[in-house]
Order: sequence, then structure tokens, then C-alpha cells
Amino acid sequence: MSVPEQTLRDLVIANRILAHQNVVDGYGHVSVRHPSNPERFLLSRSRAPELVVEGDIMEFTLDGTVVGDDRRPPYLERFIHGALYEARPDIHSVVHSHAEETLAFGIANVPMKPVIHLARSIGPHVPVWDIADKFGDNTDLLVTNADHGRDLAQRLGDASVALMRGHGFAAVGRSIVDVVRLSVYLPVNARVLTAAMSFGSLMALAAGEIAGPSGFDPGLPAYWRAWEYWARRAGVGERLGEMP
Amino acid sequence: MSVPEQTLRDLVIANRILAHQNVVDGYGHVSVRHPSNPERFLLSRSRAPELVVEGDIMEFTLDGTVVGDDRRPPYLERFIHGALYEARPDIHSVVHSHAEETLAFGIANVPMKPVIHLARSIGPHVPVWDIADKFGDNTDLLVTNADHGRDLAQRLGDASVALMRGHGFAAVGRSIVDVVRLSVYLPVNARVLTAAMSFGSLMALAAGEIAGPSGFDPGLPAYWRAWEYWARRAGVGERLGEMP
Amino acid sequence: MSVPEQTLRDLVIANRILAHQNVVDGYGHVSVRHPSNPERFLLSRSRAPELVVEGDIMEFTLDGTVVGDDRRPPYLERFIHGALYEARPDIHSVVHSHAEETLAFGIANVPMKPVIHLARSIGPHVPVWDIADKFGDNTDLLVTNADHGRDLAQRLGDASVALMRGHGFAAVGRSIVDVVRLSVYLPVNARVLTAAMSFGSLMALAAGEIAGPSGFDPGLPAYWRAWEYWARRAGVGERLGEMP
Amino acid sequence: MSVPEQTLRDLVIANRILAHQNVVDGYGHVSVRHPSNPERFLLSRSRAPELVVEGDIMEFTLDGTVVGDDRRPPYLERFIHGALYEARPDIHSVVHSHAEETLAFGIANVPMKPVIHLARSIGPHVPVWDIADKFGDNTDLLVTNADHGRDLAQRLGDASVALMRGHGFAAVGRSIVDVVRLSVYLPVNARVLTAAMSFGSLMALAAGEIAGPSGFDPGLPAYWRAWEYWARRAGVGERLGEMP
Repeated sequence: MSVPEQTLRDLVIANRILAHQNVVDGYGHVSVRHPSNPERFLLSRSRAPELVVEGDIMEFTLDGTVVGDDRRPPYLERFIHGALYEARPDIHSVVHSHAEETLAFGIANVPMKPVIHLARSIGPHVPVWDIADKFGDNTDLLVTNADHGRDLAQRLGDASVALMRGHGFAAVGRSIVDVVRLSVYLPVNARVLTAAMSFGSLMALAAGEIAGPSGFDPGLPAYWRAWEYWARRAGVGERLGEMP
Repeated sequence: MSVPEQTLRDLVIANRILAHQNVVDGYGHVSVRHPSNPERFLLSRSRAPELVVEGDIMEFTLDGTVVGDDRRPPYLERFIHGALYEARPDIHSVVHSHAEETLAFGIANVPMKPVIHLARSIGPHVPVWDIADKFGDNTDLLVTNADHGRDLAQRLGDASVALMRGHGFAAVGRSIVDVVRLSVYLPVNARVLTAAMSFGSLMALAAGEIAGPSGFDPGLPAYWRAWEYWARRAGVGERLGEMP
Repeated sequence: MSVPEQTLRDLVIANRILAHQNVVDGYGHVSVRHPSNPERFLLSRSRAPELVVEGDIMEFTLDGTVVGDDRRPPYLERFIHGALYEARPDIHSVVHSHAEETLAFGIANVPMKPVIHLARSIGPHVPVWDIADKFGDNTDLLVTNADHGRDLAQRLGDASVALMRGHGFAAVGRSIVDVVRLSVYLPVNARVLTAAMSFGSLMALAAGEIAGPSGFDPGLPAYWRAWEYWARRAGVGERLGEMP
Repeated sequence: MSVPEQTLRDLVIANRILAHQNVVDGYGHVSVRHPSNPERFLLSRSRAPELVVEGDIMEFTLDGTVVGDDRRPPYLERFIHGALYEARPDIHSVVHSHAEETLAFGIANVPMKPVIHLARSIGPHVPVWDIADKFGDNTDLLVTNADHGRDLAQRLGDASVALMRGHGFAAVGRSIVDVVRLSVYLPVNARVLTAAMSFGSLMALAAGEIAGPSGFDPGLPAYWRAWEYWARRAGVGERLGEMP
């Protein structure tokens, strides 16, 4: 089943936005579930996100196996993506990142929680996954097989993002625009929370504020505005599709 | 009533300066009161400030209604601007921003106060507005109607800037140059104050220093110098008018 | 008495380096003593340092009076420069900056001291000058007359740099290369000191390390290397003179 | 014995990456051991790393003496490199840097340790070398002779990186790719560790995680990916060789 051109373009846009916004560097990746086959996902070959173009996109089954005879080296940690699509039929895009502002929350006994409205899609609870809990301390912390990935997915549960101890985070979204937005504002939320903690007490978002008013429409111009802006700044504005 | 060309150009300059100085990103906006009709204000259509050009400027009545048959999507939070112009006949320009350095002061029990002379226009008191105080916690924290805006305006009172809990700030000025200057130096003041608080005791500006010596002239070359500099750095130097 | 071309070029280079290194923004300035008349100094007209060119340089007597019939607006705070040249015959260049990393040290009861070798020219003692001590709190903290300047010079004494409470710093050097170097590394030293203070105890440079070994030669290639590098990065490499 | 062209190109790439990633500024340097003569090493003449080209590379014996009649000024601190190659036959590349995030750990009584997987090559123990321990406080902290260098090498022992009190760090690697990678992620690790320490307790990498699983292959595409990416960002992608 062929992949629509705009899906590939959106995936390139997502790669470039995440690089330009310093959410990923030479490492980190973003994928989308195959639009017409939910048992597959699309992800670049092993390449720094800032350099990714449409021709780099490979297709995988959910256990991380390359589809077809594509011999190009894939990312070592493609198992993050496959396991999350497998466990969460509701999600259609995944980001893995080492964004440094989030890393302190993965190694200290302090919960990440949303404190700014831009980051409310973080959700009420952010689990921390420690690979050593199940696999011991003889790993390099990377998610290099399906067992690792499934353990991470189990820890994520129905949350939107899991911190990975000493490593980074994995975030999921109903769409690529959602998960990129979450991934951009999670580090901002982390910086604000870090500063506020140094002041003493602080007020996080309330449960109702995290859930948001009913009738919220993700197709709002306000959502598209940031996606369009980030794409233009990252130099890939010409790949933008129509506002949904 | 038509709008002078330089008013539109100044509004574009303000948008670009705020984006270039990282006061706004895909979100945040700046408006001016209509020069010949104080019951109206001028604000871009829903667009990232860095991308705004003169043709994007729309006209609104103070309750946030679009003037004429302009069908382009406006900012959801235009009500911030209208309500502040309504409550404060003395002010002629408004900025709304999510500048992250200010956010910690909106969620922690620590007052923002001016500690550097560049930020003395912050004024002696910076109120914090919490949308939940009046509207409960079933909002997304956004100012999406005139009631929200008027509640914010009431909290602002006669101050120059109000922090919005978990959201950002709203700043007002006698001119667009004033409020842009305040918006650029408010985050700087926040960073200096944050660092100094970590040292223990600190000395804020005295009341006389905040008020400034009598005879202060906002048309000083020193004021224009920063506006000109920021405009040139933001790539819109060719839109600059005459020094007032 | 005419000014050598390379003196003007070096002053432009200094302006651009300080802007490019974020030591100054639209505000802040750098001057040199007139090479053949120690009772005069050279300083740009009121202009953002990043925009300064040779033709902007004006000549002043040490009390801050413009020489000749130059009608262009000078910097309000030129009195900083004149007073320091007057009080310190040993120095030949002055920088005034609002570099934000240094500001917290001017408002909190914590001494600035050199902790890294690159900043050893800070010297063993960094006084803090508070304009309110002598002039009360009905100022805007600016050094706008010769009395202000002389009070600052008295507080500086024989030090290399004085912090100005709520305002910035004034630094002096035997040459323009010296004072630019000091001004670039003072904020770095401030950041390192700020981080180390958060860790608890720390070790500052020893007196002998600040003084340095005898026989130190400021004409070393290592000194020129940074000046040349910063000039090239700031886009004014073509103005560089010969290594002294 | 002539030096392969790609060795020179790789050394230029390393200089440019370290400059572009803010690991070095006008100061700091990177060297490689001579590929066919382990008693010699290659290092640029005294020049800011961002400006280094192949023609700047000079050859030295391990005591820091220039080979041949090359009269160009060398770096004052070339003795760091020679002494480390002399003491550690296992290493083939050396970086010296003043990266500011690491400096606080050199002056405070707080150990640097790896807390993120990207920095696990830091190793389990990071010694701090204080030049004053052996040479007193009448130095400018610089490693300006072979005795200084050998004292540093002794303190480094079999570690991968030593912090130099009030000065910077010296890092070693089995290859230039290894030591550049370590030098890029050491400051990231320092920032994460600094933030996490402010939160209270934290979890560093376990011994097994630092050692990594057996069978680890440094020629993995994942290693090359970052090197290629950094080189392209630094504008020297055209100098890249083949993936090893």
C-alpha cells in the first residue's frame, strides 16, 4: 500500500522542526503509523533528523522488522516506535528525544507535571521508565529490541509521555502535529518547572485545565499556526499541506 | 477612518522585534489602539508574529468583534487587547506573551519586581491574574471571551503588566515603543531576579528609581536607539519611521 | 590632533565584538583614550554598538563635553568614560555594559570574584557602586553627569571593574584588547560562579594566580588569537591591524 | 613520514565541530597521534579552532617540541597533548577545552559523574587536577611545560577525562570521533547533573551501564551519524571520509 505524498512530507517537516527547535540533535526520531495499514509505521533510516528527506523514510512492522528488501541501516531504537503503536491503537505518531531539560526529571525523585497551558497535553501523570528495573544494569540504556520496547510501552500505559531514566523521553500523539507540539513544549515546561521549584511552592495545572473544556477542536487555526511557523523557521515551509 | 501607513509599519516592526527577541514564538501578539478612533484597535490575523506583514492587520471593536466583513481567522485571545483598551484610556498598545522566564513567577508565590533600571517601567507592583479565581478550573487558561478579558483588566488595575498564571503576561504602554521595550526587558529582569534570589537577599529598585526623575522624556535618542537596533536585527529596518 | 585610522578601526572592532558576544545590546559602549591627547577620549555617537562605524566616533574632553561643533546626540552616559580616564591615568580603554549575568552580583550581597583563569584580569576585588549612596533614590540609575561619573570612579579605585547596582558594570584596561577580553569573560565567570555557589563551597583563584607569573606578556599570540577570532566572527575581520 | 590526507581533514573537522558546538571558543584545541609514528602528534598552530584548515597543522614530539623548522607560533599548552600521549599508549586523540558548564565542577567539592547514556564514555571516575597542588599558586593555571603536562597525566591516570581546576578539562579517546563525542556530551551531562542536584537526590549511571554491554561496536552507524551531522552543521561536510 503506497503512502500519500503529504504523509511523507509531514514526516520530513516533523524531523526538521524537532531539530530546529533543539528537541533532537544527531539523535532522536519521529515516526507516523502507516495511514492505510495500522500494523506498520514509517521512520527515517539512521540519519540525523535535520538531514532527513522523503527518500530516507523506511517502512517497518510493529516488531521493528524492515518491510521489503531495504538494506539501509535503520535506527537502533526503532523498537520504541513499534511497541508503542502496538500497545496504543489510539496513537498515530511517536517521538523519541534526548532533550536535555527533561533529563533531570528522569534521574531525580521529582515528578514532571504540566505547569503551563502550552504543555497541558503532557497529561496529569508522567511515568518514569527505568530500563534497569527489568533488564538490570548491563545495558547501554538503549531500547534495542522488542522486549525493551514493550516494557517501555507498559510503563507508559495510557499517558502521553514517559521519561526514560538517564536517556530521554518517548511521547505519543493522535497526530504528528500533536506529538511534535508536545515535544516542543515539554522542555519549556521542564525549564519553567525547574525555575519555579527553586522558588519554593508552586501551582501546577488543575485536572480540569489539563483535560480542557469540552468541545476543544484540534483543527483550530491556533494549532496550525505553530506548526506552520515552526516549519517555515526550519526551512521546510514549501512542504506544508492544507490546514486540516 | 483610514490608518496611517506608519502605524501599520510600526505594528509589523513590533511583531518582528518581539519574535526576534524571543518574547513571542508561534503564539503571543501585539496591538495598537486605532490612532483616530479610540474605540477600536489593530491586531494581526491569526498568524505567528514573525510572519506578520501590513496586509495581515485587522480592525476590531473593544469587545473583540471584527470590523467589516473581514473573514480571516482572528487570534482566539483578541479579548485581552480589547478589554485592556476599554479599561485603560491612557494606554495605546498591548502585548500578550508566553515568555518563559516570566512563567515561574506566575505559578510560584514569589513577586516579580524590577531589579534593573532597564525594566523600571514594570512598575512597583506586578499583579498575578489567575483565570481559575473567577472561572474555575474547567478552562484551557485562554482568554477567549470578553468576560475573561475584563476580569484580567480588573486585576491589572493601573499597573503596567500582569502575569497570567500558567499562561504568560499582558503588558500595556503609552506607545508601541514603550510596551515593546517593557516586553523585551521583563524576561531579562526575571532572569536576573531568579539568579539573585538563589544568592539570598537582594535589593530591588527603590520607589524613586522606578518613578524616575521628573522631566524624563520618552522621546530621548536613547529610547529610539533600542527600537532602531531591534528593528534592524529583526530585518525590518527599512520600515522604520522618523525618530519622534 | 588627528586620530590614527587603526585606532578608529579597533574601536569599531571592539563595538562589534561586544555586540556579537552579547556583552552589549542596544545599550552599552566602549571608548579609547585619544592616543596623542590623554585629556580626551573617543566614543561613538548615540548608536547601538552593533551598528557603529568609524564615522560615528566623536571626541570628548574628560568632563564629557563634545569637542568641536559636532551636533550629533552623544550617549547619555559618556560621563562614565571621562571620569574613569580622569581618575586613572594608567588606563586607556573603558567598557560600560548591562551584561545580565553580572547584574545579580550587583544587587545581592555576594561578591564577584575570579574563579577561572580566563577572567583573572577581573582582579582580587570587585567593588559594587550604588548610585543611591550619594545621590539618593530619585535617579534613573544612569550616570548622566560628571558628579555621577566621579563618584563611580572613586568607588572603582584601582580595581579593573566595578559593578553598578541595578544597572551593569564599568571595566577599564590598559588597552582596548584588554578591556574587551575582560568584558567578554566577566559574564562567563559570573555564570560559573553562580553554578558553583549552588553546589556549596568553592575555590576561587588564589592571589598569586590572579597576579600571574612575572614576565607575563600581553603581546602573546594567545591574546591576539581571541581578538582576531572574535573580530572575524563579528564580521569585521577586514578591519584587523597587525598583531602588536 | 607523511600524514594521510584524511587524517588532516578529520582533525580540521574535529576543530570545527568543537567550535560549532561551543566546546571551544578562541581557546581550546584538539590533536591526534601521528598515525605512523606514535612518538609524535599533530596539532594546529596557535589559532582559534573555528578558523583552522589543513595547512595549519604542525607536528610535535611528545615533549612538545616542534618537528622540523616550522616557525609558526604553536599553542602555549601543547604540553597537555604530548604528556597524555606519552602516558597513555592506548589513546589516539586529545581535546583541551574551557567549556563553561564543566568549570563549576572543577572548583566546587562536587564530583562529575555520568548521568545520561550519551555521556557514559566519561567513565566511572573523573579526577580533578589542581595545578597548585604541585606548582603552587604563582602560575596562571596554564600547562606551559612538560612538567605541568606530566603532572596532569598522572592525575588523569586511566580515566577518560580530567577536570582542571579553574581552567577547563582534558579528554582522551581511542579515536578522534570518540574524544569529540565525549567533549560534546560532557557539558550536556554537566547541565543535567547541575539541574538534578538542585532537585535533591539523583540516580547516576550504574557501573554496568557505564561499561556497556559486551560486544559494543564503535563503528556502529549510530556513532558515525552524530559525527556526520556535526560536521555538516559546522560547514565541513565536504571533508568527511568513509564511515569506518
